[in-house]
Amino acid sequence: MHTVSEMVRTNPQPAPLQRDALIQCIEVCMLCEQTCAACADACLGEVGLEALRRCIRTNLDCADVCASTARMLSRHFAPEPGLIARQLALCAAACSLCAEECGRHHHEHCQVCAEMCARTEDECRKALGAIRAE
Amino acid sequence: MHTVSEMVRTNPQPAPLQRDALIQCIEVCMLCEQTCAACADACLGEVGLEALRRCIRTNLDCADVCASTARMLSRHFAPEPGLIARQLALCAAACSLCAEECGRHHHEHCQVCAEMCARTEDECRKALGAIRAE
Amino acid sequence: MHTVSEMVRTNPQPAPLQRDALIQCIEVCMLCEQTCAACADACLGEVGLEALRRCIRTNLDCADVCASTARMLSRHFAPEPGLIARQLALCAAACSLCAEECGRHHHEHCQVCAEMCARTEDECRKALGAIRAE
Amino acid sequence: MHTVSEMVRTNPQPAPLQRDALIQCIEVCMLCEQTCAACADACLGEVGLEALRRCIRTNLDCADVCASTARMLSRHFAPEPGLIARQLALCAAACSLCAEECGRHHHEHCQVCAEMCARTEDECRKALGAIRAE
Repeated sequence: MHTVSEMVRTNPQPAPLQRDALIQCIEVCMLCEQTCAACADACLGEVGLEALRRCIRTNLDCADVCASTARMLSRHFAPEPGLIARQLALCAAACSLCAEECGRHHHEHCQVCAEMCARTEDECRKALGAIRAE
Repeated sequence: MHTVSEMVRTNPQPAPLQRDALIQCIEVCMLCEQTCAACADACLGEVGLEALRRCIRTNLDCADVCASTARMLSRHFAPEPGLIARQLALCAAACSLCAEECGRHHHEHCQVCAEMCARTEDECRKALGAIRAE
Repeated sequence: MHTVSEMVRTNPQPAPLQRDALIQCIEVCMLCEQTCAACADACLGEVGLEALRRCIRTNLDCADVCASTARMLSRHFAPEPGLIARQLALCAAACSLCAEECGRHHHEHCQVCAEMCARTEDECRKALGAIRAE
Repeated sequence: MHTVSEMVRTNPQPAPLQRDALIQCIEVCMLCEQTCAACADACLGEVGLEALRRCIRTNLDCADVCASTARMLSRHFAPEPGLIARQLALCAAACSLCAEECGRHHHEHCQVCAEMCARTEDECRKALGAIRAE
Protein backbone atom coordinates (compact mmCIF):
# COMPACT_ATOMS: atom_id res chain seq x y z
CA MET A 1 0.00 0.00 0.00
CA HIS A 2 2.92 2.37 -0.58
CA THR A 3 0.86 4.18 -3.23
CA VAL A 4 -1.17 5.94 -0.51
CA SER A 5 1.92 7.52 1.03
CA GLU A 6 3.37 8.23 -2.43
CA MET A 7 0.21 10.13 -3.39
CA VAL A 8 0.30 12.12 -0.14
CA ARG A 9 4.00 12.92 -0.65
CA THR A 10 3.65 14.02 -4.29
CA ASN A 11 0.54 16.20 -3.90
CA PRO A 12 1.57 19.81 -4.63
CA GLN A 13 -0.64 21.10 -1.80
CA PRO A 14 0.04 20.63 1.92
CA ALA A 15 -1.64 17.65 3.58
CA PRO A 16 -4.96 18.44 5.30
CA LEU A 17 -3.59 16.98 8.54
CA GLN A 18 -0.38 15.51 9.96
CA ARG A 19 1.01 13.16 7.27
CA ASP A 20 1.46 9.88 9.14
CA ALA A 21 -1.99 10.11 10.72
CA LEU A 22 -3.44 10.93 7.29
CA ILE A 23 -1.78 8.02 5.50
CA GLN A 24 -2.72 5.51 8.22
CA CYS A 25 -6.28 6.75 8.23
CA ILE A 26 -6.73 6.55 4.43
CA GLU A 27 -5.26 3.03 4.39
CA VAL A 28 -7.46 1.61 7.12
CA CYS A 29 -10.60 3.28 5.74
CA MET A 30 -9.97 1.62 2.37
CA LEU A 31 -9.37 -1.76 3.96
CA CYS A 32 -12.32 -1.35 6.30
CA GLU A 33 -14.67 -0.53 3.42
CA GLN A 34 -13.66 -3.76 1.69
CA THR A 35 -13.78 -5.84 4.86
CA CYS A 36 -17.28 -4.61 5.70
CA ALA A 37 -18.59 -5.14 2.15
CA ALA A 38 -17.10 -8.65 2.21
CA CYS A 39 -18.47 -9.39 5.69
CA ALA A 40 -22.00 -8.41 4.61
CA ASP A 41 -21.71 -10.87 1.73
CA ALA A 42 -20.19 -13.62 3.89
CA CYS A 43 -23.06 -13.20 6.37
CA LEU A 44 -25.53 -13.47 3.47
CA GLY A 45 -24.07 -16.86 2.63
CA GLU A 46 -24.13 -18.28 6.17
CA VAL A 47 -26.42 -20.86 7.70
CA GLY A 48 -28.34 -19.02 10.40
CA LEU A 49 -28.67 -15.85 8.35
CA GLU A 50 -31.59 -14.54 10.43
CA ALA A 51 -29.23 -13.84 13.35
CA LEU A 52 -26.91 -11.84 11.07
CA ARG A 53 -29.37 -9.30 9.71
CA ARG A 54 -28.27 -6.44 11.94
CA CYS A 55 -24.65 -7.34 11.15
CA ILE A 56 -25.31 -7.00 7.40
CA ARG A 57 -26.98 -3.63 7.86
CA THR A 58 -24.18 -2.30 10.06
CA ASN A 59 -21.58 -3.58 7.59
CA LEU A 60 -23.27 -1.81 4.67
CA ASP A 61 -23.41 1.51 6.52
CA CYS A 62 -19.81 1.20 7.67
CA ALA A 63 -18.58 0.36 4.16
CA ASP A 64 -20.29 3.45 2.69
CA VAL A 65 -19.03 5.77 5.41
CA CYS A 66 -15.44 4.45 5.17
CA ALA A 67 -15.54 4.92 1.39
CA SER A 68 -16.53 8.58 1.62
CA THR A 69 -13.99 9.16 4.41
CA ALA A 70 -11.14 7.77 2.28
CA ARG A 71 -12.24 9.96 -0.63
CA MET A 72 -12.43 13.15 1.43
CA LEU A 73 -9.06 12.51 3.09
CA SER A 74 -7.46 11.91 -0.31
CA ARG A 75 -8.07 15.58 -1.20
CA HIS A 76 -5.52 18.22 -0.19
CA PHE A 77 -6.84 21.22 -2.10
CA ALA A 78 -8.69 23.80 0.03
CA PRO A 79 -9.50 21.48 2.93
CA GLU A 80 -12.18 22.35 5.48
CA PRO A 81 -10.99 21.16 8.91
CA GLY A 82 -14.50 21.38 10.38
CA LEU A 83 -15.97 19.17 7.68
CA ILE A 84 -13.12 16.67 7.86
CA ALA A 85 -13.57 16.49 11.64
CA ARG A 86 -17.26 15.70 11.23
CA GLN A 87 -16.47 13.01 8.65
CA LEU A 88 -13.86 11.44 10.92
CA ALA A 89 -16.20 11.48 13.93
CA LEU A 90 -18.96 9.87 11.84
CA CYS A 91 -16.54 7.24 10.58
CA ALA A 92 -15.33 6.46 14.11
CA ALA A 93 -18.97 6.08 15.21
CA ALA A 94 -19.88 3.79 12.27
CA CYS A 95 -16.78 1.66 12.89
CA SER A 96 -17.49 1.47 16.62
CA LEU A 97 -21.02 0.18 16.02
CA CYS A 98 -19.81 -2.32 13.43
CA ALA A 99 -16.94 -3.54 15.63
CA GLU A 100 -19.41 -4.12 18.44
CA GLU A 101 -21.98 -5.93 16.27
CA CYS A 102 -19.45 -8.10 14.40
CA GLY A 103 -17.76 -8.87 17.73
CA ARG A 104 -20.94 -10.61 18.85
CA HIS A 105 -20.72 -13.29 16.15
CA HIS A 106 -18.32 -16.22 16.17
CA HIS A 107 -17.85 -16.43 12.39
CA GLU A 108 -14.23 -15.84 11.45
CA HIS A 109 -15.17 -13.13 8.91
CA CYS A 110 -17.04 -11.26 11.65
CA GLN A 111 -13.99 -11.49 13.91
CA VAL A 112 -11.66 -10.18 11.19
CA CYS A 113 -14.15 -7.40 10.47
CA ALA A 114 -14.54 -6.49 14.15
CA GLU A 115 -10.77 -6.07 14.46
CA MET A 116 -10.53 -4.03 11.25
CA CYS A 117 -13.36 -1.74 12.40
CA ALA A 118 -11.80 -1.27 15.84
CA ARG A 119 -8.49 -0.32 14.22
CA THR A 120 -10.20 2.07 11.84
CA GLU A 121 -12.12 3.71 14.69
CA ASP A 122 -8.79 4.19 16.41
CA GLU A 123 -7.06 5.76 13.43
CA CYS A 124 -10.04 8.05 12.81
CA ARG A 125 -9.83 9.25 16.40
CA LYS A 126 -6.07 9.82 16.06
CA ALA A 127 -6.64 11.80 12.87
CA LEU A 128 -9.36 13.76 14.63
CA GLY A 129 -6.92 14.56 17.44
CA ALA A 130 -4.34 15.63 14.85
CA ILE A 131 -6.85 18.04 13.26
CA ARG A 132 -7.99 19.53 16.54
CA ALA A 133 -4.41 20.04 17.69
CA GLU A 134 -3.65 22.21 14.67
CA MET B 1 -39.39 10.13 -8.31
CA HIS B 2 -42.35 8.25 -6.88
CA THR B 3 -40.13 5.17 -6.51
CA VAL B 4 -38.48 6.66 -3.40
CA SER B 5 -41.81 6.95 -1.57
CA GLU B 6 -42.94 3.57 -2.91
CA MET B 7 -39.83 1.93 -1.47
CA VAL B 8 -40.34 3.62 1.89
CA ARG B 9 -44.00 2.55 1.91
CA THR B 10 -43.36 -1.09 0.98
CA ASN B 11 -40.44 -1.74 3.36
CA PRO B 12 -41.58 -4.30 5.95
CA GLN B 13 -39.74 -2.46 8.73
CA PRO B 14 -40.77 0.90 10.20
CA ALA B 15 -39.11 3.97 8.71
CA PRO B 16 -36.01 5.21 10.61
CA LEU B 17 -37.62 8.64 10.92
CA GLN B 18 -40.88 10.45 10.07
CA ARG B 19 -41.84 9.31 6.55
CA ASP B 20 -42.30 12.59 4.70
CA ALA B 21 -39.05 14.01 6.07
CA LEU B 22 -37.30 10.76 5.13
CA ILE B 23 -38.61 10.69 1.56
CA GLN B 24 -37.82 14.35 0.94
CA CYS B 25 -34.34 13.91 2.36
CA ILE B 26 -33.49 10.85 0.25
CA GLU B 27 -34.76 12.57 -2.90
CA VAL B 28 -32.76 15.77 -2.45
CA CYS B 29 -29.60 13.88 -1.43
CA MET B 30 -29.79 11.88 -4.68
CA LEU B 31 -30.35 14.98 -6.77
CA CYS B 32 -27.67 16.91 -4.91
CA GLU B 33 -25.10 14.17 -5.46
CA GLN B 34 -25.74 14.33 -9.20
CA THR B 35 -25.83 18.13 -9.31
CA CYS B 36 -22.50 18.39 -7.48
CA ALA B 37 -20.82 15.74 -9.64
CA ALA B 38 -22.11 17.55 -12.74
CA CYS B 39 -21.05 20.97 -11.41
CA ALA B 40 -17.51 19.73 -10.77
CA ASP B 41 -17.37 18.58 -14.40
CA ALA B 42 -18.94 21.77 -15.74
CA CYS B 43 -16.36 23.82 -13.81
CA LEU B 44 -13.59 21.64 -15.29
CA GLY B 45 -14.78 22.63 -18.77
CA GLU B 46 -14.98 26.39 -18.11
CA VAL B 47 -12.74 29.18 -19.27
CA GLY B 48 -11.17 30.60 -16.10
CA LEU B 49 -10.84 27.22 -14.46
CA GLU B 50 -8.24 28.46 -11.96
CA ALA B 51 -10.92 30.41 -10.08
CA LEU B 52 -13.09 27.31 -9.82
CA ARG B 53 -10.66 24.96 -8.13
CA ARG B 54 -12.12 25.28 -4.64
CA CYS B 55 -15.58 24.87 -6.20
CA ILE B 56 -14.57 21.56 -7.80
CA ARG B 57 -13.15 20.26 -4.52
CA THR B 58 -16.23 21.27 -2.55
CA ASN B 59 -18.48 19.70 -5.18
CA LEU B 60 -16.62 16.38 -5.04
CA ASP B 61 -16.86 16.22 -1.24
CA CYS B 62 -20.52 17.15 -1.27
CA ALA B 63 -21.35 14.53 -3.93
CA ASP B 64 -19.68 11.77 -1.90
CA VAL B 65 -21.34 12.78 1.36
CA CYS B 66 -24.80 13.07 -0.26
CA ALA B 67 -24.35 9.61 -1.81
CA SER B 68 -23.60 7.94 1.51
CA THR B 69 -26.44 9.86 3.18
CA ALA B 70 -28.97 8.62 0.62
CA ARG B 71 -27.70 5.06 1.07
CA MET B 72 -27.92 5.13 4.87
CA LEU B 73 -31.38 6.70 4.84
CA SER B 74 -32.60 4.03 2.40
CA ARG B 75 -32.09 1.39 5.09
CA HIS B 76 -34.88 0.69 7.62
CA PHE B 77 -33.55 -2.45 9.30
CA ALA B 78 -32.07 -1.89 12.79
CA PRO B 79 -31.44 1.85 12.41
CA GLU B 80 -29.08 3.70 14.75
CA PRO B 81 -30.54 7.17 15.41
CA GLY B 82 -27.23 8.50 16.72
CA LEU B 83 -25.36 7.47 13.58
CA ILE B 84 -28.08 8.78 11.26
CA ALA B 85 -28.01 12.10 13.13
CA ARG B 86 -24.23 12.39 12.61
CA GLN B 87 -24.62 11.56 8.92
CA LEU B 88 -27.36 14.16 8.50
CA ALA B 89 -25.34 16.82 10.34
CA LEU B 90 -22.29 16.06 8.17
CA CYS B 91 -24.41 16.24 5.04
CA ALA B 92 -25.93 19.56 6.08
CA ALA B 93 -22.40 20.91 6.70
CA ALA B 94 -21.08 19.67 3.33
CA CYS B 95 -24.09 21.16 1.53
CA SER B 96 -23.76 24.44 3.37
CA LEU B 97 -20.11 24.82 2.33
CA CYS B 98 -20.91 23.88 -1.26
CA ALA B 99 -23.92 26.22 -1.43
CA GLU B 100 -21.71 29.06 -0.21
CA GLU B 101 -18.85 28.31 -2.61
CA CYS B 102 -21.05 27.73 -5.68
CA GLY B 103 -23.02 30.85 -4.78
CA ARG B 104 -19.88 32.92 -5.34
CA HIS B 105 -19.68 32.03 -9.04
CA HIS B 106 -21.88 33.46 -11.76
CA HIS B 107 -21.97 30.33 -13.93
CA GLU B 108 -25.49 29.00 -14.30
CA HIS B 109 -24.46 25.49 -13.23
CA CYS B 110 -22.98 26.93 -10.04
CA GLN B 111 -26.23 28.79 -9.37
CA VAL B 112 -28.35 25.66 -9.92
CA CYS B 113 -25.95 23.73 -7.69
CA ALA B 114 -25.98 26.38 -4.94
CA GLU B 115 -29.78 26.22 -4.81
CA MET B 116 -29.81 22.42 -4.79
CA CYS B 117 -27.24 22.35 -1.96
CA ALA B 118 -29.18 24.91 0.07
CA ARG B 119 -32.34 22.87 -0.30
CA THR B 120 -30.55 19.68 0.67
CA GLU B 121 -29.02 21.34 3.73
CA ASP B 122 -32.54 22.37 4.68
CA GLU B 123 -34.04 18.89 4.30
CA CYS B 124 -31.15 17.33 6.23
CA ARG B 125 -31.78 19.75 9.09
CA LYS B 126 -35.51 18.94 9.01
CA ALA B 127 -34.75 15.21 9.09
CA LEU B 128 -32.33 15.84 11.95
CA GLY B 129 -35.09 17.64 13.82
CA ALA B 130 -37.45 14.72 13.13
CA ILE B 131 -34.92 12.26 14.59
CA ARG B 132 -34.22 14.33 17.69
CA ALA B 133 -37.92 14.82 18.37
CA GLU B 134 -38.49 11.07 18.55
CA MET C 1 -35.77 16.14 -11.21
CA HIS C 2 -35.36 19.18 -13.43
CA THR C 3 -31.86 19.70 -11.99
CA VAL C 4 -30.48 16.86 -14.14
CA SER C 5 -31.60 18.55 -17.37
CA GLU C 6 -30.51 21.97 -16.05
CA MET C 7 -27.01 20.63 -15.38
CA VAL C 8 -26.82 19.08 -18.86
CA ARG C 9 -28.05 22.33 -20.42
CA THR C 10 -25.64 24.61 -18.54
CA ASN C 11 -22.46 22.51 -18.97
CA PRO C 12 -20.05 24.52 -21.16
CA GLN C 13 -18.99 21.38 -23.04
CA PRO C 14 -21.12 19.44 -25.51
CA ALA C 15 -23.08 16.50 -24.11
CA PRO C 16 -21.35 13.10 -24.49
CA LEU C 17 -24.44 11.78 -26.28
CA GLN C 18 -27.83 12.95 -27.54
CA ARG C 19 -29.29 15.18 -24.78
CA ASP C 20 -32.69 13.61 -24.16
CA ALA C 21 -31.26 10.10 -24.03
CA LEU C 22 -28.54 11.35 -21.68
CA ILE C 23 -30.93 13.09 -19.28
CA GLN C 24 -33.33 10.14 -19.17
CA CYS C 25 -30.48 7.73 -18.59
CA ILE C 26 -28.93 9.73 -15.72
CA GLU C 27 -32.33 10.10 -14.06
CA VAL C 28 -33.24 6.43 -14.15
CA CYS C 29 -29.76 5.31 -13.07
CA MET C 30 -30.05 7.55 -9.98
CA LEU C 31 -33.51 6.25 -9.16
CA CYS C 32 -32.51 2.66 -9.86
CA GLU C 33 -29.50 2.91 -7.53
CA GLN C 34 -31.78 4.05 -4.72
CA THR C 35 -34.51 1.51 -5.50
CA CYS C 36 -32.01 -1.36 -5.50
CA ALA C 37 -30.33 -0.23 -2.26
CA ALA C 38 -33.77 0.09 -0.66
CA CYS C 39 -34.93 -3.30 -2.03
CA ALA C 40 -31.86 -5.03 -0.56
CA ASP C 41 -32.75 -3.54 2.82
CA ALA C 42 -36.45 -4.36 2.50
CA CYS C 43 -35.54 -7.98 1.67
CA LEU C 44 -33.28 -8.07 4.75
CA GLY C 45 -36.29 -7.17 6.89
CA GLU C 46 -38.67 -9.77 5.42
CA VAL C 47 -39.95 -12.99 6.88
CA GLY C 48 -38.56 -15.73 4.64
CA LEU C 49 -35.23 -14.00 4.17
CA GLU C 50 -33.48 -17.19 3.03
CA ALA C 51 -35.36 -17.10 -0.28
CA LEU C 52 -34.25 -13.51 -0.88
CA ARG C 53 -30.50 -13.93 -0.60
CA ARG C 54 -29.82 -13.88 -4.33
CA CYS C 55 -32.15 -10.89 -4.63
CA ILE C 56 -30.09 -8.96 -2.06
CA ARG C 57 -26.85 -9.75 -3.84
CA THR C 58 -28.22 -8.76 -7.24
CA ASN C 59 -29.63 -5.54 -5.78
CA LEU C 60 -26.28 -4.57 -4.25
CA ASP C 61 -24.44 -5.13 -7.54
CA CYS C 62 -27.07 -3.23 -9.51
CA ALA C 63 -27.00 -0.28 -7.09
CA ASP C 64 -23.21 0.04 -7.38
CA VAL C 65 -23.21 -0.22 -11.16
CA CYS C 66 -26.04 2.31 -11.55
CA ALA C 67 -24.18 4.72 -9.26
CA SER C 68 -21.01 4.64 -11.32
CA THR C 69 -23.03 4.91 -14.56
CA ALA C 70 -24.79 8.07 -13.35
CA ARG C 71 -21.44 9.56 -12.33
CA MET C 72 -19.75 8.82 -15.65
CA LEU C 73 -22.70 10.14 -17.68
CA SER C 74 -22.70 13.35 -15.63
CA ARG C 75 -19.29 14.26 -17.08
CA HIS C 76 -19.08 16.08 -20.41
CA PHE C 77 -15.40 16.96 -20.50
CA ALA C 78 -13.29 14.81 -22.85
CA PRO C 79 -15.69 11.87 -23.05
CA GLU C 80 -14.58 8.45 -24.27
CA PRO C 81 -17.42 6.91 -26.32
CA GLY C 82 -15.93 3.42 -26.10
CA LEU C 83 -15.75 3.55 -22.30
CA ILE C 84 -19.23 5.02 -21.96
CA ALA C 85 -20.58 2.26 -24.23
CA ARG C 86 -19.01 -0.41 -22.01
CA GLN C 87 -20.43 1.23 -18.89
CA LEU C 88 -23.91 1.40 -20.44
CA ALA C 89 -23.77 -2.23 -21.60
CA LEU C 90 -22.67 -3.33 -18.11
CA CYS C 91 -25.45 -1.31 -16.54
CA ALA C 92 -28.05 -2.79 -18.88
CA ALA C 93 -26.79 -6.29 -17.99
CA ALA C 94 -26.88 -5.61 -14.22
CA CYS C 95 -30.38 -4.15 -14.51
CA SER C 96 -31.58 -7.06 -16.61
CA LEU C 97 -30.39 -9.61 -14.03
CA CYS C 98 -31.91 -7.62 -11.19
CA ALA C 99 -35.23 -7.12 -13.00
CA GLU C 100 -35.41 -10.86 -13.58
CA GLU C 101 -34.53 -11.81 -10.00
CA CYS C 102 -36.81 -9.21 -8.36
CA GLY C 103 -39.58 -10.20 -10.76
CA ARG C 104 -39.58 -13.67 -9.19
CA HIS C 105 -40.67 -12.38 -5.77
CA HIS C 106 -44.15 -11.26 -4.85
CA HIS C 107 -43.11 -8.56 -2.37
CA GLU C 108 -44.26 -5.15 -3.48
CA HIS C 109 -40.75 -3.66 -3.12
CA CYS C 110 -39.40 -6.37 -5.42
CA GLN C 111 -42.10 -5.56 -7.97
CA VAL C 112 -41.34 -1.83 -7.86
CA CYS C 113 -37.63 -2.63 -8.17
CA ALA C 114 -38.15 -5.04 -11.08
CA GLU C 115 -40.01 -2.32 -13.00
CA MET C 116 -37.39 0.31 -12.21
CA CYS C 117 -34.59 -2.02 -13.34
CA ALA C 118 -36.42 -2.92 -16.55
CA ARG C 119 -36.88 0.77 -17.32
CA THR C 120 -33.24 1.52 -16.57
CA GLU C 121 -32.08 -1.35 -18.79
CA ASP C 122 -34.21 0.16 -21.53
CA GLU C 123 -32.81 3.66 -21.17
CA CYS C 124 -29.24 2.34 -21.05
CA ARG C 125 -29.86 0.49 -24.31
CA LYS C 126 -31.33 3.64 -25.89
CA ALA C 127 -28.32 5.65 -24.76
CA LEU C 128 -26.06 2.94 -26.14
CA GLY C 129 -27.88 3.20 -29.46
CA ALA C 130 -27.47 6.98 -29.37
CA ILE C 131 -23.69 6.62 -28.84
CA ARG C 132 -23.22 4.03 -31.57
CA ALA C 133 -25.24 6.10 -34.04
CA GLU C 134 -22.85 9.05 -33.66
CA MET D 1 -3.62 -5.84 3.19
CA HIS D 2 -3.95 -9.35 4.57
CA THR D 3 -7.61 -8.60 5.40
CA VAL D 4 -8.59 -9.00 1.73
CA SER D 5 -7.27 -12.56 1.60
CA GLU D 6 -8.67 -13.31 5.07
CA MET D 7 -12.13 -12.24 3.92
CA VAL D 8 -11.88 -14.38 0.78
CA ARG D 9 -10.69 -17.37 2.86
CA THR D 10 -13.42 -17.09 5.51
CA ASN D 11 -16.39 -16.55 3.20
CA PRO D 12 -18.68 -19.59 3.49
CA GLN D 13 -19.39 -19.57 -0.24
CA PRO D 14 -16.88 -20.52 -2.95
CA ALA D 15 -14.92 -17.67 -4.52
CA PRO D 16 -16.41 -16.31 -7.77
CA LEU D 17 -13.08 -16.95 -9.52
CA GLN D 18 -9.65 -18.44 -8.83
CA ARG D 19 -8.61 -17.18 -5.35
CA ASP D 20 -5.21 -15.64 -5.99
CA ALA D 21 -6.44 -13.77 -9.06
CA LEU D 22 -9.46 -12.58 -7.06
CA ILE D 23 -7.43 -11.33 -4.09
CA GLN D 24 -4.89 -9.55 -6.29
CA CYS D 25 -7.65 -7.95 -8.31
CA ILE D 26 -9.58 -6.66 -5.29
CA GLU D 27 -6.39 -5.25 -3.77
CA VAL D 28 -5.27 -3.36 -6.84
CA CYS D 29 -8.77 -2.04 -7.57
CA MET D 30 -8.92 -0.58 -4.04
CA LEU D 31 -5.50 0.99 -4.37
CA CYS D 32 -6.22 2.24 -7.87
CA GLU D 33 -9.45 3.92 -6.76
CA GLN D 34 -7.54 5.82 -4.09
CA THR D 35 -4.61 6.65 -6.38
CA CYS D 36 -6.93 8.03 -9.07
CA ALA D 37 -9.00 10.07 -6.59
CA ALA D 38 -5.75 11.45 -5.14
CA CYS D 39 -4.29 12.16 -8.59
CA ALA D 40 -7.38 14.13 -9.60
CA ASP D 41 -6.92 16.26 -6.49
CA ALA D 42 -3.17 16.63 -6.98
CA CYS D 43 -3.80 17.79 -10.58
CA LEU D 44 -6.34 20.31 -9.27
CA GLY D 45 -3.63 21.84 -7.08
CA GLU D 46 -0.98 22.10 -9.82
CA VAL D 47 0.33 25.11 -11.66
CA GLY D 48 -0.67 24.57 -15.29
CA LEU D 49 -4.01 23.06 -14.40
CA GLU D 50 -5.45 23.69 -17.88
CA ALA D 51 -3.26 20.95 -19.34
CA LEU D 52 -4.50 18.48 -16.72
CA ARG D 53 -8.23 18.71 -17.32
CA ARG D 54 -8.52 15.50 -19.30
CA CYS D 55 -6.35 13.80 -16.68
CA ILE D 56 -8.77 14.85 -13.90
CA ARG D 57 -11.76 13.56 -15.82
CA THR D 58 -10.10 10.25 -16.62
CA ASN D 59 -9.03 9.88 -12.99
CA LEU D 60 -12.57 10.46 -11.70
CA ASP D 61 -14.04 7.86 -14.09
CA CYS D 62 -11.33 5.33 -13.24
CA ALA D 63 -11.80 5.83 -9.48
CA ASP D 64 -15.56 5.20 -9.75
CA VAL D 65 -15.16 2.12 -11.94
CA CYS D 66 -12.44 0.62 -9.71
CA ALA D 67 -14.67 1.19 -6.65
CA SER D 68 -17.60 -0.70 -8.13
CA THR D 69 -15.28 -3.46 -9.38
CA ALA D 70 -13.84 -4.01 -5.88
CA ARG D 71 -17.34 -4.13 -4.43
CA MET D 72 -18.65 -6.65 -6.96
CA LEU D 73 -15.58 -8.89 -6.60
CA SER D 74 -15.98 -8.84 -2.80
CA ARG D 75 -19.26 -10.75 -3.15
CA HIS D 76 -19.24 -14.56 -3.35
CA PHE D 77 -22.94 -15.31 -3.02
CA ALA D 78 -24.68 -16.28 -6.29
CA PRO D 79 -22.09 -14.74 -8.65
CA GLU D 80 -22.89 -14.05 -12.30
CA PRO D 81 -19.77 -14.80 -14.36
CA GLY D 82 -21.09 -12.86 -17.35
CA LEU D 83 -21.65 -9.71 -15.30
CA ILE D 84 -18.31 -10.00 -13.51
CA ALA D 85 -16.59 -10.41 -16.89
CA ARG D 86 -18.23 -7.20 -18.17
CA GLN D 87 -17.21 -5.34 -15.01
CA LEU D 88 -13.62 -6.55 -15.32
CA ALA D 89 -13.44 -5.63 -19.01
CA LEU D 90 -14.83 -2.15 -18.24
CA CYS D 91 -12.33 -1.72 -15.42
CA ALA D 92 -9.43 -2.79 -17.64
CA ALA D 93 -10.58 -0.26 -20.25
CA ALA D 94 -10.92 2.59 -17.72
CA CYS D 95 -7.48 1.79 -16.27
CA SER D 96 -5.92 1.59 -19.72
CA LEU D 97 -7.23 5.05 -20.65
CA CYS D 98 -6.10 6.51 -17.34
CA ALA D 99 -2.66 4.90 -17.52
CA GLU D 100 -2.20 6.38 -20.98
CA GLU D 101 -3.39 9.86 -20.00
CA CYS D 102 -1.45 10.03 -16.72
CA GLY D 103 1.59 8.67 -18.52
CA ARG D 104 1.64 11.84 -20.65
CA HIS D 105 2.31 14.11 -17.67
CA HIS D 106 5.61 14.47 -15.89
CA HIS D 107 4.16 15.10 -12.41
CA GLU D 108 5.24 12.42 -9.97
CA HIS D 109 1.63 11.75 -8.89
CA CYS D 110 0.67 11.16 -12.52
CA GLN D 111 3.57 8.72 -12.89
CA VAL D 112 2.59 6.80 -9.74
CA CYS D 113 -1.00 6.76 -10.95
CA ALA D 114 -0.06 5.59 -14.45
CA GLU D 115 1.82 2.64 -12.98
CA MET D 116 -1.00 1.78 -10.60
CA CYS D 117 -3.54 1.89 -13.45
CA ALA D 118 -1.36 -0.27 -15.70
CA ARG D 119 -1.02 -2.85 -12.92
CA THR D 120 -4.75 -2.80 -12.27
CA GLU D 121 -5.52 -3.23 -15.97
CA ASP D 122 -3.22 -6.23 -15.90
CA GLU D 123 -4.84 -7.86 -12.88
CA CYS D 124 -8.32 -7.26 -14.31
CA ARG D 125 -7.27 -9.01 -17.52
CA LYS D 126 -5.83 -11.92 -15.52
CA ALA D 127 -9.05 -12.20 -13.51
CA LEU D 128 -11.00 -12.06 -16.77
CA GLY D 129 -8.88 -14.91 -18.11
CA ALA D 130 -9.50 -16.87 -14.89
CA ILE D 131 -13.27 -16.44 -15.30
CA ARG D 132 -13.31 -17.44 -18.96
CA ALA D 133 -11.17 -20.51 -18.28
CA GLU D 134 -13.72 -21.86 -15.81
